[in-house]
Amino acid sequence: MKAEIIAVGTELLLGQIVNSNAQYLSTQLAELGIHVYFHTVVGDNAGRLRETIQTSQNRSDLVILTGGLGPTRDDITKETVADILGKKQVIDQQALEKIESYFRHRQLPMSSNNRKQAEVIEGSRVFPNDYGMAPGMAVEEENRHYVLLPGPPSELKPMFEQYVRPYLQSLMPDSYTVFSRTLRFFGIGESRLDEKLSDLIQNQSNPTIAPLAKEYEVTIRLTARAASRDEANRMISGIEQEIRNRTGRFIYGQDDESLQQVVVRMLKERGKSVAVAESCTGGMIAEMITSVAGSSQVFPGSIVSYSNGIKQTALHIPEQVIRKYGAVSEQTARLMSENIRGIMDTEYGVSVTGVAGPDRQEEKEVGTVYIGLSNSENTRVFPLKLAGHRHAIRLQAAKYALYYLWQSMKEG
Amino acid sequence: MKAEIIAVGTELLLGQIVNSNAQYLSTQLAELGIHVYFHTVVGDNAGRLRETIQTSQNRSDLVILTGGLGPTRDDITKETVADILGKKQVIDQQALEKIESYFRHRQLPMSSNNRKQAEVIEGSRVFPNDYGMAPGMAVEEENRHYVLLPGPPSELKPMFEQYVRPYLQSLMPDSYTVFSRTLRFFGIGESRLDEKLSDLIQNQSNPTIAPLAKEYEVTIRLTARAASRDEANRMISGIEQEIRNRTGRFIYGQDDESLQQVVVRMLKERGKSVAVAESCTGGMIAEMITSVAGSSQVFPGSIVSYSNGIKQTALHIPEQVIRKYGAVSEQTARLMSENIRGIMDTEYGVSVTGVAGPDRQEEKEVGTVYIGLSNSENTRVFPLKLAGHRHAIRLQAAKYALYYLWQSMKEG
Repeated sequence: MKAEIIAVGTELLLGQIVNSNAQYLSTQLAELGIHVYFHTVVGDNAGRLRETIQTSQNRSDLVILTGGLGPTRDDITKETVADILGKKQVIDQQALEKIESYFRHRQLPMSSNNRKQAEVIEGSRVFPNDYGMAPGMAVEEENRHYVLLPGPPSELKPMFEQYVRPYLQSLMPDSYTVFSRTLRFFGIGESRLDEKLSDLIQNQSNPTIAPLAKEYEVTIRLTARAASRDEANRMISGIEQEIRNRTGRFIYGQDDESLQQVVVRMLKERGKSVAVAESCTGGMIAEMITSVAGSSQVFPGSIVSYSNGIKQTALHIPEQVIRKYGAVSEQTARLMSENIRGIMDTEYGVSVTGVAGPDRQEEKEVGTVYIGLSNSENTRVFPLKLAGHRHAIRLQAAKYALYYLWQSMKEG
Repeated sequence: MKAEIIAVGTELLLGQIVNSNAQYLSTQLAELGIHVYFHTVVGDNAGRLRETIQTSQNRSDLVILTGGLGPTRDDITKETVADILGKKQVIDQQALEKIESYFRHRQLPMSSNNRKQAEVIEGSRVFPNDYGMAPGMAVEEENRHYVLLPGPPSELKPMFEQYVRPYLQSLMPDSYTVFSRTLRFFGIGESRLDEKLSDLIQNQSNPTIAPLAKEYEVTIRLTARAASRDEANRMISGIEQEIRNRTGRFIYGQDDESLQQVVVRMLKERGKSVAVAESCTGGMIAEMITSVAGSSQVFPGSIVSYSNGIKQTALHIPEQVIRKYGAVSEQTARLMSENIRGIMDTEYGVSVTGVAGPDRQEEKEVGTVYIGLSNSENTRVFPLKLAGHRHAIRLQAAKYALYYLWQSMKEG
């Protein structure tokens, strides 16, 4: 089934709000196995809305319209759809009673505008609005389905969950399930990953393989369609195994679990703790770890040693080490990770020192970063050359620190 | 000038990301006086992209395409536009050198995919990408303007600011200037601000007054259209003065200067420094301060004392204070701010201790937060009751800490 989503509202075209309804509906439709080929946003203008709906008729089996069901004269979605389909509008008694009771209850006068909200296209299936006034509806014409939903996400989402999803499922062939799994990568770029998996990506059909780069990570979403969830799961597991064989050491997790969530979970599972000494990341690693609820079990604290003086007084880095090798050096990173482990009495010590920019420092290039990782057995230091501006370098450095800690736990 | 925005990317149709670029560009175009009539999202499919662009040619003078400029075979925007316009693609030398230097710097092999990113449509005006690989471009054909921009917002926004806005302004008639100023508020909610300014907001025409709530701050954007920038500036200053008279104590800055940038700038101007002791914010305040380039002049470091043990050993909070009053208490916040100032030898000490949730702690409600602010003259502690989930409470607490420091410097 081919679908498209048309959002109606001038406020979207002015950029006052973002079209989050299209995103929400797209994830829901993808799960149902309905292919969404277009999103359109059009203003509260009958001519342009008509043009947009007519375009959709040439290419989609399912047209979902959001917004424009309100009481004002700007709200024209129902009128325009009814007009195009040559249908009348009729009062939906249940919606009318709800609106009347709302005004009675608040002792407010009800205007004819409000009555207009209770109108639906004749012959349509009505979806009650449990969180607002305007009912939604679905109408079929020439094997094409039109679904009209209210604009506010707080009304649209519960209406979709409660009424629209079962309606759409009833349109789908029986025994047809869609199931997805997302693999999360760090330490490998999108184009290198694409190269390693190019034959799989080129020959994909079912399951589909969708890579996405975001915040210096890459995800690959595997989506299978099958008669049962078990079968879909088996299909995904097959392709997943092949991807893991080729690129497994970069796969730190799956679905919605972030790098910091994986690290906190693994520390908990192992009964270990970590402390952090940060220079160029300036608190970012600590912030990421403590963003995870329950991290206090595995993270007693950290020190941000931004100046060389604090590296000496708070982290006990000897002055001559900094003088001889520099604050940004393998030697300083090593001692930072070892000393923070001692100060905070943890199993792991992680450190970062580097040049985030905009200027060079100690004659070292912007992007030069050393990550220290220490436990009771040994200390390793990972040198990095990172690209990008200040925020990019800091964020990559923080993620690499978590990634090396993850790798170490996985190996250990 | 009639415009539309076409976003290219299957990840949008799958709902993996929201089309925030369309929102951003719409606000920018509205300010330039360019009318946006349609947003479209189309997948990485040459046939459907071609169809979408051809539809736009019948109705728009300016077509902005976002996304699909990356290195993979999914990225087809340039090829499709070039093909429709009957133009070739040529290598942009500046972009190629940048990509080559990136791979040289990181000692990574460069693939032919990456070279493809340096290609532009012949005869186009090239917009350099200061935050990524793929350059943007503008090409004119039959009085119609096509602008191609990269998909990642972190690349698109600075490119728009730096290069695309001036280009679009050059397309507009002379003697028509649009000028904006944004006032930045903290510590006051949008609806209370709306109440205080309701007559101004209701009677606005030119300048326009656009409040926006975001990340627990409110901004008000004042936009004037006039024959000259000076005249627009005068118009804005008049309404700004009235807003400042009513709500000035909540206005910490203007335009793009964030709370942390204002704080770092004021510390520099005064030759002062600050150190931070964080419990529930877990490094967020340090991260915010050090996100500002040059913050090392005013920020030697910080301690995240997430466990009570570290509060005692690293921040020297007496055990009996924690036992008697709790780690989340006025007394602990006071000592944390005083002691971190001593440990780091700074003029200001800032501390945060609180309950970020999800669970109560020491029988204190989620959202209970104490902020300590200490200098050589005195120590003040600000108790807060914050609403929301874990991230909301942490972010608000971090911003309140910076806000109190800002207030103290402004008064002092």
